Amino acid sequence: MPSIAQLGHVALVTPNLEKSLWYMRDVLGMEVVAEEGDKLYLRCYQELEHHSLVLSEGPEAVCEHVGWRVGAPEDVQAYAEQLRAAGVDVTEHDGGPGHGESIRFHTPGGEHPFELFYDVERPATKGPERSLVPSNSRPRTGLGPRRIDHVNLWTSADTVASTEQWMSEQLGFKRREYVQPTGAPLVASWMSVTPQVHDVAVMTDFGTNSPGRFHHVAFNMECFSDVLTAADHLRDRGVQIDLGPGKHGIGQAMFLYTRDPGSGHRIELYAGGYFIFAPDWEPILWNEENMDTGLVYYGPPFSPDPSHPMTPTTACARQEVSA
Amino acid sequence: MPSIAQLGHVALVTPNLEKSLWYMRDVLGMEVVAEEGDKLYLRCYQELEHHSLVLSEGPEAVCEHVGWRVGAPEDVQAYAEQLRAAGVDVTEHDGGPGHGESIRFHTPGGEHPFELFYDVERPATKGPERSLVPSNSRPRTGLGPRRIDHVNLWTSADTVASTEQWMSEQLGFKRREYVQPTGAPLVASWMSVTPQVHDVAVMTDFGTNSPGRFHHVAFNMECFSDVLTAADHLRDRGVQIDLGPGKHGIGQAMFLYTRDPGSGHRIELYAGGYFIFAPDWEPILWNEENMDTGLVYYGPPFSPDPSHPMTPTTACARQEVSA
Amino acid sequence: MPSIAQLGHVALVTPNLEKSLWYMRDVLGMEVVAEEGDKLYLRCYQELEHHSLVLSEGPEAVCEHVGWRVGAPEDVQAYAEQLRAAGVDVTEHDGGPGHGESIRFHTPGGEHPFELFYDVERPATKGPERSLVPSNSRPRTGLGPRRIDHVNLWTSADTVASTEQWMSEQLGFKRREYVQPTGAPLVASWMSVTPQVHDVAVMTDFGTNSPGRFHHVAFNMECFSDVLTAADHLRDRGVQIDLGPGKHGIGQAMFLYTRDPGSGHRIELYAGGYFIFAPDWEPILWNEENMDTGLVYYGPPFSPDPSHPMTPTTACARQEVSA
Amino acid sequence: MPSIAQLGHVALVTPNLEKSLWYMRDVLGMEVVAEEGDKLYLRCYQELEHHSLVLSEGPEAVCEHVGWRVGAPEDVQAYAEQLRAAGVDVTEHDGGPGHGESIRFHTPGGEHPFELFYDVERPATKGPERSLVPSNSRPRTGLGPRRIDHVNLWTSADTVASTEQWMSEQLGFKRREYVQPTGAPLVASWMSVTPQVHDVAVMTDFGTNSPGRFHHVAFNMECFSDVLTAADHLRDRGVQIDLGPGKHGIGQAMFLYTRDPGSGHRIELYAGGYFIFAPDWEPILWNEENMDTGLVYYGPPFSPDPSHPMTPTTACARQEVSA
Repeated sequence: MPSIAQLGHVALVTPNLEKSLWYMRDVLGMEVVAEEGDKLYLRCYQELEHHSLVLSEGPEAVCEHVGWRVGAPEDVQAYAEQLRAAGVDVTEHDGGPGHGESIRFHTPGGEHPFELFYDVERPATKGPERSLVPSNSRPRTGLGPRRIDHVNLWTSADTVASTEQWMSEQLGFKRREYVQPTGAPLVASWMSVTPQVHDVAVMTDFGTNSPGRFHHVAFNMECFSDVLTAADHLRDRGVQIDLGPGKHGIGQAMFLYTRDPGSGHRIELYAGGYFIFAPDWEPILWNEENMDTGLVYYGPPFSPDPSHPMTPTTACARQEVSA
Repeated sequence: MPSIAQLGHVALVTPNLEKSLWYMRDVLGMEVVAEEGDKLYLRCYQELEHHSLVLSEGPEAVCEHVGWRVGAPEDVQAYAEQLRAAGVDVTEHDGGPGHGESIRFHTPGGEHPFELFYDVERPATKGPERSLVPSNSRPRTGLGPRRIDHVNLWTSADTVASTEQWMSEQLGFKRREYVQPTGAPLVASWMSVTPQVHDVAVMTDFGTNSPGRFHHVAFNMECFSDVLTAADHLRDRGVQIDLGPGKHGIGQAMFLYTRDPGSGHRIELYAGGYFIFAPDWEPILWNEENMDTGLVYYGPPFSPDPSHPMTPTTACARQEVSA
Repeated sequence: MPSIAQLGHVALVTPNLEKSLWYMRDVLGMEVVAEEGDKLYLRCYQELEHHSLVLSEGPEAVCEHVGWRVGAPEDVQAYAEQLRAAGVDVTEHDGGPGHGESIRFHTPGGEHPFELFYDVERPATKGPERSLVPSNSRPRTGLGPRRIDHVNLWTSADTVASTEQWMSEQLGFKRREYVQPTGAPLVASWMSVTPQVHDVAVMTDFGTNSPGRFHHVAFNMECFSDVLTAADHLRDRGVQIDLGPGKHGIGQAMFLYTRDPGSGHRIELYAGGYFIFAPDWEPILWNEENMDTGLVYYGPPFSPDPSHPMTPTTACARQEVSA
Repeated sequence: MPSIAQLGHVALVTPNLEKSLWYMRDVLGMEVVAEEGDKLYLRCYQELEHHSLVLSEGPEAVCEHVGWRVGAPEDVQAYAEQLRAAGVDVTEHDGGPGHGESIRFHTPGGEHPFELFYDVERPATKGPERSLVPSNSRPRTGLGPRRIDHVNLWTSADTVASTEQWMSEQLGFKRREYVQPTGAPLVASWMSVTPQVHDVAVMTDFGTNSPGRFHHVAFNMECFSDVLTAADHLRDRGVQIDLGPGKHGIGQAMFLYTRDPGSGHRIELYAGGYFIFAPDWEPILWNEENMDTGLVYYGPPFSPDPSHPMTPTTACARQEVSA
């Protein structure tokens, strides 16, 4: 059976590339590894692979796709066959900058665009500075996000359960924690193929009930203190903070939800959390009795109200933005 | 093929159980989950499983065994067969407190005693306090170690390479980082079955060149700041600090090496570090050119000199301490 | 001219002494230095003086008085004369446990009860543990508050300006930062006799407009991370958190407002902040244009609404609770 | 009696201004407020005054002078008279960039050059970024030193006691903590005019026994975690770290001693510590019994050996470097 090994990258379209680049490169401190065609390829200082973020300019802020790295070279084709057998529309792509051949498809209902690939390049930094630590691609810089951590995707109330089930059956994501009020359908699920509590979360869009919304991509910070320092910097530079700093009960990590000022894409800065090494993990249920603790263990209150700044701000691309 | 899923526990013998208990329970804050026969079973606040530490009193401070949890119920017997086929002396054991049937054996040369098991109990805390966070077995307390992290085993110069190779071939541990001076044999290797940089390290005992030494067990802390706070507490309570606080280049984690005052067993308090999700990770080589950065990226200098407080202080048990 | 040197202590009455003691001693980690009559005397680990908190049981949670240490032995009597000359009702008291003779009086309108004293005892801890650091009275313990920091007193809208002016003229507190909407009277003032931004704040009670309310006493923590760790502990032990963790723009400190579960007195855990060494500091004005940044630079939103958990919960004693 | 209010600035000469500027401005994040003649004037983000560091290029790395701000306008002339009456050679200077008229002189033996001034300019940043926090001159940047903290001056064994006594009698510095082995003369003293444990330390130069050495200037960081992050950055950028990170027992602060790569001047990054508000503070004695705890409470070992990287690296200017 093919498997997914890890989250690889997100490809985001921004109406204001210059401003997004200011945020991602100059403030957060990501490295621009390559610029090809209309696309910029960026990575964090602890990523040896070519990129974890693709930025391009376009009329509307959308998430073009989420890229997953599979566990073995043959898994790309194996997934292509498996998904086609399941009735999914799969397109095949030559290798782009930084990675080899890939397939692309959407989750059921045609909503969340995924890419699968295996081969990656691991270029040395083009910058003048080498890190003394070979597991880093260059010295820490900016606010210090060190790697991509997870994505959070929202969908309509009637598709969240089926999307989650599909991601489990077709792609192998395991449910780790979930929200399901007593006697009601699934509201949200945190899923992973790694020991992280989630590589991806799937949630109900209470506000607009739209399918195919992109809620956020999270980058991992080394320490809780880095999240506080980031809050300090971002507040003083006028970057919108939607929620945080605070700590989730679900996953036990510190959070700070910010907005890329060029696009409105929500970027989470995320630190800590627990890891699941048990092969027989029993998913943790959250419901009406303890949800307050789940989303915010300590910190500012979260509300799923559509007027709350935490509602999804951008959409996933339904078709290929750039074929 | 059977697999190992995670480090489960260490069983340590201490000449002064009361003092060891003061350190582990009263200072570090571990929970005594059970007391059966002459053994105490302890766990950290983020561990749902029955125990990660077994303490018993004995004339000499030894590591009785290191317990690994396998990936599936049938893996215990599968490993028994595989290891016997490889000429290893394997004993079978009924389930003890907290886990089911197990097998025990020593690594080649008869040096490092390992136990493999699958079934575990996950008892609720017997204490009065329940955590609001279901992924914790109880509220954080003491200095806040949250889970067992890894073990570090030392052996003689001429067996380190063979032991490492055996652990790779027989047990599936992958080499992540290693020390090998140019033109010389392997000196040390950090290995894991999880995305951690190491679940176990195997190193050369420069000082005494003894096989079968137990260097330390590490417990994971949430943040770098927890390591600093622990250093503050321990220094003021007379607990010996061998090295730290500081940061490793290898693994990128904060370290604080302390000694259990009841036994002299070295206990590392450990935080942070990077994770390896890539299925094709290229092990990182350290040698005479960059070793300074490897062991201590910043912090107090480390020396492998036999007079250094960081030499192994206790041994691994060669036979079953309590059959 | 007499002067005030520092905040010495607060004397709080609690309806549930046992529960307050659980919070102050067992959770926060303060030392009970003495117990005399119906009063308990506590201090933090970095305080060499006898106490910074007096607890006694009574029918109602009130702040009995705020104790200030003056700059010289003769200042106690000098203040007695000066205040009486200003028409203030001053009572004289023999030394109580831990400090010498004192005077007591209320701020104008008879609202906030103050005590002034000079002589203090500096007893060694009665506990078994001595700190290796002579500037600490014992090793750090519990959540680690290290010293009393400041008090926050609320009063009615029409007395805040006069109370502030009186504290400046009679007691020598200097205005450091203040809130005053354009064209409106003073709303709040942060004042100090030390380089701290405030030893005391005086604020308008928007909600009830009561004079003589006690808003909180703050204890100083070593680091921002200690505030986060405290939030973690307190949340999981059911202690109410009114606001935080977050960072003030005014004073630049981290805050966590909690409630003593025995009394409802608000206890702030406070870390960091800037210091004013300039002899010609120009007080910083906050008004309708930047108030959001002032109270909460980052963190959960604060509202002065009477329904907000941050309204004053307890009163100051108008007469001597225990003469 | 005139008084000193606070440490104002240090004026350092560097053989490689470009490299020093890279360190101070580009790495640490200080702002270059003015450039006049051959001098650059820099400040930290929490300093509203014109500068706390003056840099100029010269053949040798020396500390040209240490600038202290006095408590009142008339104190400059009052000190001039007092010092001349005490036989000190005092020169008078017109206001330079950023501050008004000043006097300059050397401590006894002609060793440590001091400047006293009162009037200061408080210019808005010339940079494009304004801080939302009015007590900051601009948003935090770089590694985040927020203000000058203290200076550390070394002298010969036979002048340390007399220098310390002179600084107390003539300038009003109070002894806070000190090292004096039993039956031996004073070795080191931490002194202040503020509640800080030291604004200045005077120490014996064991190694070279030179008078008039400049040991370091310290800049204050917000949190312990900032010191760790700084260590990470500096290590990876090849900046020499002489000692740390670690915590002093004396003063209870975190330390990281680094070297300006342009000059070899030692720059300490310093966080935390306790404050002395008591008007009758009893200086703390350290001697042969507890010195280990004093200099390094936890962290790497310090040795006063002349071969240790912590010996003084640069000298104080004996005559005016630029009259």
